[in-house]
Amino acid sequence: MTERFSFELKATDGKARTGVIQTPRGEVRTPAFMPVGTAATVKAMMPESVRATGADILLGNTYHLMLRPTAERIDRLGGLHKFMNWERPILTDSGGFQVMSLAGLRKLTEKGVTFKSHIDGSKHELTPERSMEIQRLLGSDIVMCFDECPALPADRGRIENSMRLSMRWADRSREAFGDRPGHALFGIMQGGLERDMREESAEALTKIGFDGYAVGGLAVGEGQEAMFDCLDYAPDFLPKDKPRYLMGVGKPDDIVGAVARGIDMMDCVLPSRSGRTGQVFTRFGVVNIKNARHADDPRPLDEHCSCPACSHYSRAYLHHVFRANEMISGMLLTWHNLHYFQEIMQGMRDAIGAGTFAAWQAEFHAQRSQGDIPPL
Amino acid sequence: MTERFSFELKATDGKARTGVIQTPRGEVRTPAFMPVGTAATVKAMMPESVRATGADILLGNTYHLMLRPTAERIDRLGGLHKFMNWERPILTDSGGFQVMSLAGLRKLTEKGVTFKSHIDGSKHELTPERSMEIQRLLGSDIVMCFDECPALPADRGRIENSMRLSMRWADRSREAFGDRPGHALFGIMQGGLERDMREESAEALTKIGFDGYAVGGLAVGEGQEAMFDCLDYAPDFLPKDKPRYLMGVGKPDDIVGAVARGIDMMDCVLPSRSGRTGQVFTRFGVVNIKNARHADDPRPLDEHCSCPACSHYSRAYLHHVFRANEMISGMLLTWHNLHYFQEIMQGMRDAIGAGTFAAWQAEFHAQRSQGDIPPL
Repeated sequence: MTERFSFELKATDGKARTGVIQTPRGEVRTPAFMPVGTAATVKAMMPESVRATGADILLGNTYHLMLRPTAERIDRLGGLHKFMNWERPILTDSGGFQVMSLAGLRKLTEKGVTFKSHIDGSKHELTPERSMEIQRLLGSDIVMCFDECPALPADRGRIENSMRLSMRWADRSREAFGDRPGHALFGIMQGGLERDMREESAEALTKIGFDGYAVGGLAVGEGQEAMFDCLDYAPDFLPKDKPRYLMGVGKPDDIVGAVARGIDMMDCVLPSRSGRTGQVFTRFGVVNIKNARHADDPRPLDEHCSCPACSHYSRAYLHHVFRANEMISGMLLTWHNLHYFQEIMQGMRDAIGAGTFAAWQAEFHAQRSQGDIPPL
Repeated sequence: MTERFSFELKATDGKARTGVIQTPRGEVRTPAFMPVGTAATVKAMMPESVRATGADILLGNTYHLMLRPTAERIDRLGGLHKFMNWERPILTDSGGFQVMSLAGLRKLTEKGVTFKSHIDGSKHELTPERSMEIQRLLGSDIVMCFDECPALPADRGRIENSMRLSMRWADRSREAFGDRPGHALFGIMQGGLERDMREESAEALTKIGFDGYAVGGLAVGEGQEAMFDCLDYAPDFLPKDKPRYLMGVGKPDDIVGAVARGIDMMDCVLPSRSGRTGQVFTRFGVVNIKNARHADDPRPLDEHCSCPACSHYSRAYLHHVFRANEMISGMLLTWHNLHYFQEIMQGMRDAIGAGTFAAWQAEFHAQRSQGDIPPL
């Protein structure tokens, strides 16, 4: 196994790319979908089950983990991998985005952000330096720069000030991260939906130099069309030989559209969160398992899916345990959703490698437009 | 595999017994602990994980299943085994006990009980005949007679009337059950803590003739000492060549004490319910994982336990995910508790077979009296 972090591009098909990220903790096949393990667990899943779905890498949340159980405690216990029983690569976010979306009484300065914990109201500070320290204590394999991310829509002045602050913080993040062989630091491009600012942000990051580059500031309320418009140009501003990570995306068609536009990595809580609320993603679109039409349906969610939920259980059972509020409902539906998301990724990796990505996309969209199988 | 239900006693040691129940769906090694799968799931567990703990048989609840998703629906879907993905033996209770403890507006007559569902207030009736029908629709391997069970303490008149009603219902249950090769019907002894009534009840049941006999009406508020006093004589009134099932028991020391008094089968929600509330059973007694002493403890719950919770996670992790209300907390702690309960059963089966049950019991109690390992 390699002792260094590296990225090898294996094939391209149009703008779509497939490759492999090598890390000391194993390889990440791209395009990659990263399940989210917010508080040191992918909710409702055992880590070996997450791996069984095909996941090569998880995402951990700095904001959640710094508050509980704290980064220092995880460090004393041997790091996040050992703590949560996941020995493969972990990417951690910087905490910046979730401070903005979850914490109370935020105060933003050039130095960083002070805020109150949403758990117990305690006061905390995050700066580029502290974010790098926390992610080092966690033992993260891929560390994200500390950035600030405005919700969209936002006016141009707000976008510009925020992006330039994030670039200064990127510089401080790089400085604070230092030299850590085997660990990677990713920069985060900002700039909202403003093309010139995306370009300016990419130039600033490339000048600093990172092991990979994220497209930040999307999937924050702008809608798929605006996001795709931005992705039509933004990834092209980034170095071709480094992985490109689109943060917080998304629905299956968002993911496919992003890969078509040159994205290599994504993460989202959608498959796990939806699993707990009874929303199921299949090749034929979304199934709401709580719907009464499933109560007597002996068929699986998807007869061609090999996940445990589809291999061993009827829609009627899944409907029943959801209605009865049983934990196995979230366990099985999350497993199915994560399995399906990973199946999409594998399908894209294979198609890009074979030069048949356009046909794969057409089939993907044709199946989804069919909709769910009719009731019996 | 046998096509008939049978019980073979392999060894005794004092009053303790070990043997095997043969059924068309597989064998049940006794003494046996049956995890409870109330609403067609052992809460927080995949069925293959329940099996991995060493369980040979599950208990299903007639009351819960008749209300949701209904016995008729489960029958249409191929029966409870297929519905919940558990192909091994299932014992179902008669519904009588849970109607008394959970349902609203109960009305008891010679014919049976009418009541309102605790889920939606709908009106239902359970009679010996209807209970047999429901358990047949579920596909239960071991069917329990419909009985009435008073909470203790209760006066002698109440106990007597209730016991005699249960014996008339046992007769009607036997009649309604009919002849179903490969399926067993168990009678339920009642009589509270009154020795003469226990004897009268056992005689009435033996005269009717059943494939096994339960000791009902215990673990309903009388305390361990009174329960053991009753178990000192009650099992002796039952046929030696049939399995004896103590319903709704219990804590680890209840289970061991019951086996020492000639009990072959037990069931209880304790290991699964406690798993969800952070109460852990170990060789050295009870551990409350929410206690702050575990927050920084890198040690497993029990270093000699081979369950996933003990093999892969620290007390600090289990404490963290319990505090964070993560589903993996209930999943791991339930697994551990069920694993530990099955380990006790295996230990007793081995010791009884080897004629060393007294020494095994002494070691069991000595370890428990040590208490949990000291904090670091």
